[in-house]
Order: sequence, then structure tokens, then C-alpha cells
Amino acid sequence: MTKWCYSFRQGEAEGGAALGDVLGSKGAGLAEMARLGLPVPPGFTISSDACRYFHAHSGQMPPGLTEAVDAALAKLAADAGHAFGDPKWPLLVAVRPSGRVSTPGLMGTALNIGLNDQTVTALASTCGDEVFAYDCYRRLVELFCCVALDHEHYEFEEALDKHKEAKGYVRDAELSAADWREVLGIYFEIGKGRFPQDPREQLWAAIRAAFLSWHSPRAQAYRALHDIAEDIGAAVVVQAMVFGNIGGESGAGVAFSRNPATGARELFGEFLPNAQGDDVTSGLRTPWPIRESAIGGKPAAGSLEASLPKAFTELDRCAGCVERHYRDMQNMEFTVEAGRLWMLQTKSGRRTTTAALKIAIDMANEGLIDREAALNRIEPASLDQLLHPTIDPSDRPLVLASGLPASPGAACGEIVFSNRDAESSAALGRKAILVRIETSPDDIAGMHAAEGVLTARGGMTSHAAVVARGMGKPCVTAATGLRIDYEDQSFTVGGRRFVKGDVITVDGSSGKVMAGAVRMLRPALTGEFATLMDWADRVRRLRVRANAETPSDARAALKFGAEGIGLARTEHMFFEGERIVAVREMILADNAAGRRAALAKLLPMQREDFKELFEIMAGLPVTIRLLDPPLHEFLPKTDAELASVAKALGADAAKLNKRAQELAESNPMLGFRGVRLAVAFPEIVDMQARAIFEAAIEAAIETGRATHVEIMVPLVFAKAELDLVKARVEATAKAVELETGIASRYRIGAMIELPRAALLAGEIARSAEFLSFGTNDLTQTTLGISRDDAGAFLRSYVAKGVLPTDPFVTLDVAGVGELIALGCERARQARPDITLGVCGEHGGDPDSIAFFDRIGVDYVSCSPFRAPIARLAAAQTALGRKSPERKDS
Amino acid sequence: MTKWCYSFRQGEAEGGAALGDVLGSKGAGLAEMARLGLPVPPGFTISSDACRYFHAHSGQMPPGLTEAVDAALAKLAADAGHAFGDPKWPLLVAVRPSGRVSTPGLMGTALNIGLNDQTVTALASTCGDEVFAYDCYRRLVELFCCVALDHEHYEFEEALDKHKEAKGYVRDAELSAADWREVLGIYFEIGKGRFPQDPREQLWAAIRAAFLSWHSPRAQAYRALHDIAEDIGAAVVVQAMVFGNIGGESGAGVAFSRNPATGARELFGEFLPNAQGDDVTSGLRTPWPIRESAIGGKPAAGSLEASLPKAFTELDRCAGCVERHYRDMQNMEFTVEAGRLWMLQTKSGRRTTTAALKIAIDMANEGLIDREAALNRIEPASLDQLLHPTIDPSDRPLVLASGLPASPGAACGEIVFSNRDAESSAALGRKAILVRIETSPDDIAGMHAAEGVLTARGGMTSHAAVVARGMGKPCVTAATGLRIDYEDQSFTVGGRRFVKGDVITVDGSSGKVMAGAVRMLRPALTGEFATLMDWADRVRRLRVRANAETPSDARAALKFGAEGIGLARTEHMFFEGERIVAVREMILADNAAGRRAALAKLLPMQREDFKELFEIMAGLPVTIRLLDPPLHEFLPKTDAELASVAKALGADAAKLNKRAQELAESNPMLGFRGVRLAVAFPEIVDMQARAIFEAAIEAAIETGRATHVEIMVPLVFAKAELDLVKARVEATAKAVELETGIASRYRIGAMIELPRAALLAGEIARSAEFLSFGTNDLTQTTLGISRDDAGAFLRSYVAKGVLPTDPFVTLDVAGVGELIALGCERARQARPDITLGVCGEHGGDPDSIAFFDRIGVDYVSCSPFRAPIARLAAAQTALGRKSPERKDS
Repeated sequence: MTKWCYSFRQGEAEGGAALGDVLGSKGAGLAEMARLGLPVPPGFTISSDACRYFHAHSGQMPPGLTEAVDAALAKLAADAGHAFGDPKWPLLVAVRPSGRVSTPGLMGTALNIGLNDQTVTALASTCGDEVFAYDCYRRLVELFCCVALDHEHYEFEEALDKHKEAKGYVRDAELSAADWREVLGIYFEIGKGRFPQDPREQLWAAIRAAFLSWHSPRAQAYRALHDIAEDIGAAVVVQAMVFGNIGGESGAGVAFSRNPATGARELFGEFLPNAQGDDVTSGLRTPWPIRESAIGGKPAAGSLEASLPKAFTELDRCAGCVERHYRDMQNMEFTVEAGRLWMLQTKSGRRTTTAALKIAIDMANEGLIDREAALNRIEPASLDQLLHPTIDPSDRPLVLASGLPASPGAACGEIVFSNRDAESSAALGRKAILVRIETSPDDIAGMHAAEGVLTARGGMTSHAAVVARGMGKPCVTAATGLRIDYEDQSFTVGGRRFVKGDVITVDGSSGKVMAGAVRMLRPALTGEFATLMDWADRVRRLRVRANAETPSDARAALKFGAEGIGLARTEHMFFEGERIVAVREMILADNAAGRRAALAKLLPMQREDFKELFEIMAGLPVTIRLLDPPLHEFLPKTDAELASVAKALGADAAKLNKRAQELAESNPMLGFRGVRLAVAFPEIVDMQARAIFEAAIEAAIETGRATHVEIMVPLVFAKAELDLVKARVEATAKAVELETGIASRYRIGAMIELPRAALLAGEIARSAEFLSFGTNDLTQTTLGISRDDAGAFLRSYVAKGVLPTDPFVTLDVAGVGELIALGCERARQARPDITLGVCGEHGGDPDSIAFFDRIGVDYVSCSPFRAPIARLAAAQTALGRKSPERKDS
Repeated sequence: MTKWCYSFRQGEAEGGAALGDVLGSKGAGLAEMARLGLPVPPGFTISSDACRYFHAHSGQMPPGLTEAVDAALAKLAADAGHAFGDPKWPLLVAVRPSGRVSTPGLMGTALNIGLNDQTVTALASTCGDEVFAYDCYRRLVELFCCVALDHEHYEFEEALDKHKEAKGYVRDAELSAADWREVLGIYFEIGKGRFPQDPREQLWAAIRAAFLSWHSPRAQAYRALHDIAEDIGAAVVVQAMVFGNIGGESGAGVAFSRNPATGARELFGEFLPNAQGDDVTSGLRTPWPIRESAIGGKPAAGSLEASLPKAFTELDRCAGCVERHYRDMQNMEFTVEAGRLWMLQTKSGRRTTTAALKIAIDMANEGLIDREAALNRIEPASLDQLLHPTIDPSDRPLVLASGLPASPGAACGEIVFSNRDAESSAALGRKAILVRIETSPDDIAGMHAAEGVLTARGGMTSHAAVVARGMGKPCVTAATGLRIDYEDQSFTVGGRRFVKGDVITVDGSSGKVMAGAVRMLRPALTGEFATLMDWADRVRRLRVRANAETPSDARAALKFGAEGIGLARTEHMFFEGERIVAVREMILADNAAGRRAALAKLLPMQREDFKELFEIMAGLPVTIRLLDPPLHEFLPKTDAELASVAKALGADAAKLNKRAQELAESNPMLGFRGVRLAVAFPEIVDMQARAIFEAAIEAAIETGRATHVEIMVPLVFAKAELDLVKARVEATAKAVELETGIASRYRIGAMIELPRAALLAGEIARSAEFLSFGTNDLTQTTLGISRDDAGAFLRSYVAKGVLPTDPFVTLDVAGVGELIALGCERARQARPDITLGVCGEHGGDPDSIAFFDRIGVDYVSCSPFRAPIARLAAAQTALGRKSPERKDS
């Protein structure tokens, strides 16, 4: 026979944390506390099975429940010393829904159940406080009407206010018992006489309301957002009332066993004297801190510690007890009734990332948990908060607009609208925020020079967002209502106009754009952070590299613990200053000789770039990807720019225009780029290979450490392509050896970013010493989604459940994942010692990392600023973190 | 021990056709003829193994070859009755390379080997003809110098011409023996005295030259073009000379056992009296027909039949004999020496498709081959020639330009430069050729109205090419030198200017553009063609449907034997006349209600379209694909067009412009299209489903036959997408049933054109009654190649062997093929009775069809004009035709 009710009282309980599904979070917490001998008011929890039955049977209560509740009430009466419905000395109960996961949307709490016109006088005489008794009664009527009869709180609040106004009262405390009786009469009218006088009827209506609250729109929305199953149902806790509103020795509060903002090991919380629990959270009265000196050492007279020291000591003891029991920081609710502490709830407390980190490390050092548990306590993605400057929460800035939180961190600076202005600001040591309608590869230099980026268009995966994340620059995209006028060098938003030079702050973590310079907090990578990373590095199998091509990125990569560079995009090096002129000369050349002449100008610059990279990364692998983007990306876009470039090049504008038209593509993503360029213009490969080898030799001499050069060929889909490039690279290596007398040691591999490449990875591996999966492009081609154009439908696809998550954030395991797994398997079969890496954005996503670890990828490479996230995620997956399931979609 | 030499003589031979690899085509043919007892001059063939050894060992002859050749020469002397090198009565030999496949580029034939200053006089006295002897000698010297000493023929021709000029001669026949001796002296000088007098030295030099000719650039190019392996090597035939130039009773010729142009069962060929074989092919003298009445019954006095009736009868007998032996039409070379016929070569003859068809059917009817063999004799792709009008080869038009043969067939008409003009020409019953720089979906109507299409740009897979092939319209793309001036309504080519209304002819089979109206031949689909198709239909498993959406295409589909429509693209129906106005209204609408209003205008037009299709295809399945292209394809492109459209719509130009910008995409191929539109704008699905169901009901009533409606959802990659659309379609079906009282029967399925869709075909199949692989887009995404942009590198990729063939013509089996095979397997596992089809261009490609058949696809759907090709290819694959290998690439 199904067990419907689980009783508990101080010292003993049926069930506990192990029955979380059945008892819900609140019921399980109460059972645990009861068994720990902590002071909990007696009560019982109705199993969530009853709720499931209720919903599966059109609102019928399951057979046997009535009898079980009767029995539990009888036991409760015995424990409490008086009975529910007793007209002389009535036992009042609270009825609260209890979801498996704490769910804010789960309303439906009813207090003081058991009061009616008769028992209210009994209560008044028992406790000798008529005002208190009627206050309790009106609270019951209001809550009951709202919870069980679909009324709204404002109806009752308005009636109360009206009464107070009529009487000239300001505070509730001024109402007399007679006033409350009068108010109660109005409340009954609002409830259209439907408030039941029978306590049992009240109880069952409250239980039914608690069941129904499981399907309230707010609860459903919350579950959808947090991926909580719909069919669990809520348990219901029925518990003897304790009263915090019974005078000066009473009160209610919320406590944390440690500081949830800083993680400091101290009891933390708030206390409201002479109040019930909902008064604390309603915000109508300002609560006191729990501890006497919680705010900057200032003594707090109304604190629990100062006003009720005995209850405080007991609370401190209880907090330590539950924290040790749960081995985690606890968030508790309590009531003090006439000087006596009662614990009403305990659960794991929410905390900032800073606090989470400190608590995890501290608890491990205290021996409360082991290091593995400490590692698993931190959600890797949350480290992002620590790695970027953050808005000081004590500042209250003017928010101008909200956009997408495209790249985390906050930055402030003067508004600029062009790369040139961003760069000249940087040259003068002034901080700038680059504001663009949207960005293109032309803007790389400006983005680098700016402190942060703000765009009017583009999604989380737009060019601005991706590049900014790669650079670790704060970025807000798609800022609503932002109208940019380049000509006027200004933008307007919400009716306000900002011009070049005005100071704004962007918060890429929240998506907010603010006026002026907002105060910020800087990240510290020492202390607990360093400890956690150290522990993570000891357990992970998966190696972590960074995507970096500039010296500052490379240094950041080292700082954030990357074990090499997994992707250095050489095209970024082509855009700066005089280089772009030579690049354009090359594109305009009529033949290989002309291209060679232009490339010769680029050679020394590329060599210097590489040399600096090799020197910074001395001793670590550096993977250099050969030129990837279609050539038209290097040409000017508008007619005016074209004309000016033609003039600068001394070239015929018509010819330049013709070449630009020849190179224009309807789908550049699928066009003439990557290895296809290398096959058509092998002289580019020659130049890049020479720059790499010469730089590696010089760097090795200068640093005295061997270079680990890896040359990566992009967009390969056939072994033959790789072979053609490989032959040029080998010939160049030989030539450089002949000239310098030093043999270059290097590895050559392919970037796998097309479905065919993944399928043919076995063939390709026969010519490749490593393969690196470019998951961004592989996602684009496997799903047929252009990242730049996905805005129109991708968000709605996730919302409608067509895709479980944004496939550009977390790897699409069902599609792209299968191709990668297949590719890895085939590559290993063909060449067992091959190195397999991942260098798309997914390399920094914890869920994706769990998948890569499972299929045996050797390393992931991500933005330097995500390297710590990857390190922690890799540790967690080594400790058993699961990769996302292949969802049926 | 390796056998190096294979001797043959009339009545006996070592080896034969089975040793084709070893003896080459010529050597094997001679051996076969010898064994059949036909008159072949005795000789021997040096194995191609010797050639392979030679090339593998830097030009060393294999050990034992000298001895083997000596022995074979001794046997030859015995057979011929005199010996090679005999100074008195020298045996002269011809040395000819013999490749496994007849290779025009394999030069290196040397005749009259064995002549020198001494034996030439012996020859002169033996045959009593000094002029003949010296003519033979000078031929040897010239051929030898060219073949073995790298001289060029023109050097000798110039010298001979100079001599003739000096002497006042016109024809070679005027030269005396003394003249020839003088000319010979000059020839020796040209050869710098390197011509060897020793017959054995001549022989070995000729053998070496024959080996070397295997690697001549021409031979290599030919092999690359025809996919012949490089490492086979050539055999070498050494054979006793017979002389066609030994007087009036002599001559040389080429014969076919049937007419290679028409297939008629008659000996066909050419004969040149008093000549050697190379005189026939050189074209310097005009040969006679073999038969007396070969040209339109006109008696031919110089014909073999008239002049040498005995030799003719013998040739006729030999031709019949080899044809029966090989069971195929034979192409023979022969020489008549002093009235006696000698057969020098026989091989399968090349023929026109018309001839191939007639010969195959005739031979099957004659019992020479069975029907299966007849079916396998026709290369399916060659049927294209029969299905389109062809240029009458007897006309000699002025060729203006050459472009790519983008869509076969010839068409002539007046030049028009716009859709409007094409359509108004058609309305007036005038034939037009649409001339465009390139075409876009806007041009569909114009292409339909025109007889043929000519573009200045675009490859074999450009929009113009693909659409024209789909329509069966002749099309030439990328015509070199064509400069189009829309404003002037003219084009210039090769210095000539053509204006609107001038008549031109385009030949999409050859890529030629010609001035004026060129005479044409119309295709006949009866007779042998109908017989072949009937036989093919009896053996094939694979069903063949057509891609068609217009009534004329649907009728063509039926005419060409398609068994239903596998792809009706509904967007083509959106471009015509007032429809595009309603479509644009829909796109501009601010909300679903606005879209519904615009769609309501389209509904009756779509319904009529579908009704006509269903009526034409009564009783056969019709697969209708829901709207696929991105919406911006329906909007005007230029600012001027935009303004005029805005005016026509009564809409704000700025708003239209804004919407166009919103919809613009950087990679439309991977953008907001296909099912993604249907998910975002389900009202489009509602309208299309309603039009389909209402049309189906009306058509069924009118034709009295059930409709087989299949609704196909494009670009699906997840089951959830299909489910969302399916729910709308089902609701519409229910609504139409409520209104009409008639239940719609239909099937719903998905187009699989993304790698993820193929991988998840099992999931998708749970909601799909059929899947159809859209191989065009699947190729684009799997290989990451935009068809529109592939021009820049795809051809060079095939040339360099990176890809075995153009993947948009023949399926990339290694990549795309694996995905399709996986998809089929998974779909069948999930739903064993699922129907699997292919509806890309590959559905009409024979090699691809062989692959689809092998993996168990149920049907292919291709352009109506390719349906016969698909039917024959499906028959051949059922008879064992192999699909292309998965090439290592």
C-alpha cells in the first residue's frame, strides 16, 4: 500500500533527504533537521505521489489519503499536545507545497489553518492577546482566499488600507481587535462567504490548492527555464504553526551558514522582530542583520544577536549542524516564538561565484568535503564572472539600453565610431568603447584597441560577439533602441543623444549599456581561484590550449593556464596598417610572379608576428592555421573606399572593382577559401611556411627552448588537398634548411570543419599528424545554418524545443557530435598516434567539453579567457560529469 | 619466365582478346583475326610488361627480350618466306604501339623498317619499281626521325615542298627515283646523319620509341580525360609490311561493319587506291567510298566494290566474320596489295547514339546478342543527344562564340534581353533566345518562354545551367567574348554587334553560338528508342520520377516515361505575374493576419496549379515541396526596382527597403529558408496545404482517378520541425474534410538535404512516410561548396584529382554517398516500409543512379528530359553496372 504521509518531530522523522522526490525539498529538509534533533515544529509531509495521482485523475484525491492524513493529524496532535480543530485550544497548522527543487513560482502557502469564528476566541484567550488572534485569523482568511479561491492579495490590501485611512491609522499595529473584526467582515465579503468555518474543510482546500499550484503558469515557466521535469509533482508539508508575531521575544528570519556574497565563514542573515516569515520577504519592514556587527562593524541593536542572544546561539549551533550534515552552505528559515527558536526550512544556499569558490576551497580545507567534491561544486561557466571586471553592485548607474550579453565583463570609455578613432584613442592612452551598427573583419584592429564593443545589431554569435569573446573584450550586441548616425558621429537612445567622446559603460555580462563611468571590481586570479585551478589540473585528462594570435592574447593564454596555442588565425595579421596594402596588391596581381612580389613584402611582418608568438609560448605547442578567409574580405566594401584604396595602391579603380566583383560570392561561407586558396595560390603557402620556419629558428635561438610548431591547413575535405599543401611546406622547410643549416621540426595537420572531412578523417589522417575539429564551421555546414543569418530563427528553434540548446554555444551532440566521434574513430584507426583537438568556440563550453572528453579528444582550444573554464570542465568530466544526452529532436 | 613475344599468322596465334592487357587492343585484334583464319600479315606482339619494365627501370629493356624478339623474328621469317635484314630480299616490318584502349595520342608508328641504302635497291629490283622503293625508304626515314629522333613532320614536308617547287612538280607522283634519292639526301641531313643503316638498330629504336610514346604529353592527356590508368603501358606490334602503294591493284582503307552514323546494316567505309594507311587518314587525298552506291545511290567509280570487287567481297566476308566473333560493330583497317586483301586491325567502332541504338536493337533481334547486352551497349548519358533537337551536321553555320554546353539541344530564335520580351515573343508565337549576363530566379518565366538561353557568365552548374537542364531548354553559359549591353539592347562578340530581334542559334550540346537560323534535326521517341526503353523498364528495380511543376514539364515527364513527380517546386509558381505581387504583400505584412490576407490571394492560383498537375499525372504520385527559398529572393534587387515595386504595392519604399535589408543574408544557402520559414510563418503551410487538398479533391472528381499526393517538407534537420509542420497540415486536412465531406489521403515526408538530417534520418523517419534526398544541397553542405561560387576552384579540383569528378554531376560517393547510405539504413530501421527517393540533379546521372540502386533507394527523380537516361541507367545497374568506387581522395 502506498505510504501517503511522512511524520516528523524534533528527534525523529519518517523519510529524509534520500526521499527528496517524495517529500520535496522542504519536506526532506524538515525530516533531516528533525532527525538531527534540531527544533522543528512537528508535522507531516504528504507524498508527491498524491499530487501526481491528483493531476492524473482530474483532481481526485487518491484513495486512502483521507485516512492517512487523519492518522498523521492524530500523531501530530499527540506530539503537539493539542488537536487540530479542538475548539478550546486549537492546533493551528501551516500548509506548504514542497517541490523537489526549490521553486519560487510554487505559491500556495496557507498559514494558521484551523482558525474560525469560534477558535479565534479560544486562541485569544489561550495566549491572552486578542489583537494577535484576530491578526492571525485575518492572515488565514486572506491567504486562504488567495490560495484556494483565486483572489488576489491587492483586493485585501486595498480594503485594509481603506479601513486604516478611515480610522487615521498609519501602521497595522495601531489596529485594535475590534478593527480587525471589522476588517475580517470585509474580507469575508470579498471572499463572497466562501471561506469555510470547518478546519478540516480549510485543510483539504489548502492541500488541493498546494497540488494545483504545481501547474500555475509561474511554476511552469520556472520549470521550463530550469529544465525541471513537469511530471514530478509537489509534496505538501502540514506543520504545526509557530508564531513569530506573538510579541517582542518573537520574530522571523532567514539565515545562511556562510556569507553568500563573499563566502566568509560567518552566520549571515536577516531578522525581523515580532513578525511572521512572509513579513521578512515582503519588504514592507526593513529587517535587522542577524549578527550584531554584520555591516562594517556598526553595532546593530535590533539584530538577533543583540536582542535575543540565546536564540542567536541556538541558531548558530543549528546552522553549523545542518552545514556539517549537508556538507554545503545552507539557507535556512526560522521563527523565534516567545524566545524559543524553531527551524522551518533548510536548503543549499545560492551564492556568488566568488563565494562559491571560497566556500568550496574552505570546506575542502576544513575536511568537510574532499577536493573532488570541491571541484564539482563550481559551475565552470560561472568562472567567467571572475575573469572579467564586473560592475560594482553598490553603484546605481543610469541604464540607457539593454542588449545581448555577448561577451562578459564590463568596460567604460569614450564613444568612438571608427577603427581609426579607437586606435588613436589607444595610442593616446585613452579608453574607448567602439560603437558600430555591426562589425566586420575590418574592425578587428579597432576592437583590439577599444576597451569594449557595442553594436546595434547582431546576435550572441555575430561577428562582434564571437571576436569580442575571443579577445576577452566586453561586448553588448543588439542594443535595443540604439540609433547610430556615423555621419553625425553620434547615437541616440531613449531620446538621449550621445556624441563621440561621451563616456559610457557597457556590461557584457548583463547586456546593459550605462551612462558615464560606472565603478568596477577587478578580477583576482590568485587565492582560491589559483587553488581550484591547481586541483583541476591535477585530475583532468583533456589538455587545454588557447586560440590566440596576438602577443597580448598569447600572454593572456599563459596567464589563464593554456598549455599551448591550438589556433593562431593568420588572417588577423593581414589587416593591420601597411599589411593590408600588400595583401591587396597580392589579390590584384595578374599572375603568380605578381603575387610573389606582394607576398615578399608581407614575409618579414609575418615572420616577426610568428617569432613573438613562439617566444612567448616557448616550449609549448603553437598551431598556426594557414590563410583561411575568402580574399574579398580583404577588399574594401563601398565604392568610395574602393576608389581611395585604388588611389593608395596606385591601381586602376576599374580593375580593382572588377577584381572585387570577380571575388564576390553568394555564399562566402561555402566559397573560395581555406585550403582552396592554398591549392590555387600555392605561393601564399610558400610565404607563410617560410615565415613560420624562419621565425621558429630565430625564436629557438633567442629563447634557448625548442619550438613546437604545428601547421594547420583549413577547410580540408580530401587527403589530396592536404598533400598538395604539404608538398609546398616540405619544400619550403628544405629550402630554409639549405639556407640556414638548421632543420625545421614541425607537424602538419588538417582542420576538420566540413562533414566530408569528418567522414573521410581516416583518409586524411594518413597525411596528417594532427586533426583539429573546427566546430564552428562544422556546425554551420552540418546543420545548414549560417551563423550570421541565424538570428531570424535560431532563438525560436531553441524556445520551441526543435534544438535543445543553441548549437553554436553547446555542441549539437546528435548531429555534429556524431560526425566528430566518427572522425576521431576513423582517424585513430588510420593513425593510432594522431593528436586530436577541437578549436571552435565549443572548446570553451563545459557541456561540449564533457562530450569531447568522452570521445577521447586530446585537447580543446578556446579563447584565452575561457581557458580556466575549460580546465575546470575538463576536471569535472574526468570526475564523471556527464555530457549532454543525444536528444530526440 | 616472362613470355615477351606473342606470334601470329593467318590461321594461328599466341594469345588473343583475353590477353588484351598484355597485347593491347591492336595486338589482341590481330591475334583474334589470325585465329579466325582471316588474312593478316604475320608478325608478333611484344608484351606491355616489357613497356612497364622499361619505364620502371629508367629505359632499360628487360632481360631476355632481345632473345625473345630474335626468336619471334626467326618465326616471322619462316612465315613470310624471307628474313628481316636479308640484303637480297629484305623482309620489311611495321612497328606500332598497341594500348589496351585505342589511344589516338599514342603516336610512334614506324613503317618499312628494314630498308637502308643497300636493301632499298634490293626492294626496287624485287618489285621492279624503283620509285616505289625509294618512296618507301623516304617514308621510313621521315617516320623514323619523327618517332625515334624527335623531329617534326613539317621539317620533312617543307624540304619535300621545296624540292617539288624547284622542279616545278605539283604532285608527289611526279617525282622520279632520282628525285627521291635527292630528297632522301636532304632527309638524312635533317636527321643529322643519325638515321641508322642497320635494320636491327632501326627495329630496336622503333620499339624504344613505341615504349616512350606511352608517356607522350598527348597520350597522357588522353588517358587523363578518359580515366585510363597510367601504369598499364603499351604493347608493341611488329608485323610484316604489306604495301597498298604498290600500284593500281593496291590501296588502303578503313571499314565499319555497319554504318556508324545511322546504324544501318551495311559495310561502310573509305578506300584510297595506291596508298598506305596513313595516306587515308592524312586527308591530303580524298578517298572513295567502299561501296559503289554509298552516297545517295550515286555510283562511285573509284569505290573498292567497283574497282577491286574480289577484295571487296573478301572484306565483306571478313567484316561479317569479325562482327559475329566480337558480337559488335567493328572498325577495321585494311590494305590491298596487288589485289590481295590484308586485315591490319579490328576494334569496336565508335558510333553516334542513333547508330548505337539501332545496332544494339538490331543485333538483339538478329540473335547476335541478348537484350541485356543490348541494354548495356548504350551509355545512358548519350541518350541526351536523342532527346533534344540537334544541329544538322550538313549545315555549316558561322560560329560566333564557344561557351559551356550547359544544357543539351539546339535552339534558334530572336535575341531578347529580358523576361518581358521573352514572354511577349512567346505570346506572339515568335521564338526567342534569352540572352543574359547571368540568370536569377527572377528569370524563370523568361527562360520558360524562350527557346534557349545564352549567358555571358556561369558554369555548368550555374543557375541558368541547372534551371535550363531542368526545363530541357538548350543553354550555353560562359560564352567567351560575349559583351552584353542591356541598355543598348545589344551584344558584341568577335567584333560583330547583334541587337534585339537578330536571329541566333545556340547549341547546348556543343556550347556553340551561331549566327542565323541553323538547320536542325528533331528527336523521334519511337522505333528503336521505344524498344530500348521498353526493355529497360522490364529489368529495372529502381523507379523513375521527374522533377516538374509546370503543366508542360509534367506532360514531358509522362512522355519520357516518368512514373510520377518526385519534386514539384512550389516557389516557381510564386514568380509569375500578379502572384509575385501577393507574395511581396505577404512578405511585407507586419503580422500573421496580414500574411493570411495576402496568402488568401495566392490560394486560388496555387490550387489551380496543383489541380492541373494532379489531372495530368492522374493515378501517379505527385510530391509537392512546400515553399523553400529565402524570402528575399522574391523581393526586387535594385533600388529602382524596389521603388517601382513599392509604388505598385502602394507600400512605403522605405519600409520595403527596410524589410529587404532585414531579410538580406550573408549566406542565403544556409539561411532562413525551407522548413524554417514554415515554422516561423505557419500560415504559409496552411495556405499551401489547403491548395493541395482542395486541388486533389477537384482533380480526383474530374479525372475519376485517385490522386497520390505527397507533401514534402524541405531542409528538415530535426523530427520536431517536421512535427510542427505536420500538425498544421493535418489540421488543414481535417478542416477541408469538414468543409467538403471528403477525406484527403496523402503522405507526408521530409527532404533530406543537410548532413544532420541524414545522420538523424532514423528519428525523422518516425514522423515521415517518405524521405527524399536533395543531393544538390546535401552536396553543398557536406563538401562546403556553394554551387554558385564553385567556379573559382572546382574545375581545377577535378583536373588536379582532388575530386574524381564534379560532385554536382556525379555523386561524391565517399562523402555525400556515405551520408545517404547511413540515412537510408537508419530510416529503414526506424520504419521498414518507408519510401526513399532522391530528387537532386544526381537522380539523372547514370553513375550516381548505380550507387542509389545499390543502397536500395526506391526511386530517383530527375528532370523530365533525363528520365529516359535514368530508366536505362536503372536497367543497367539492375544488370550489374557498378557504381563508382569510393575513391581515395
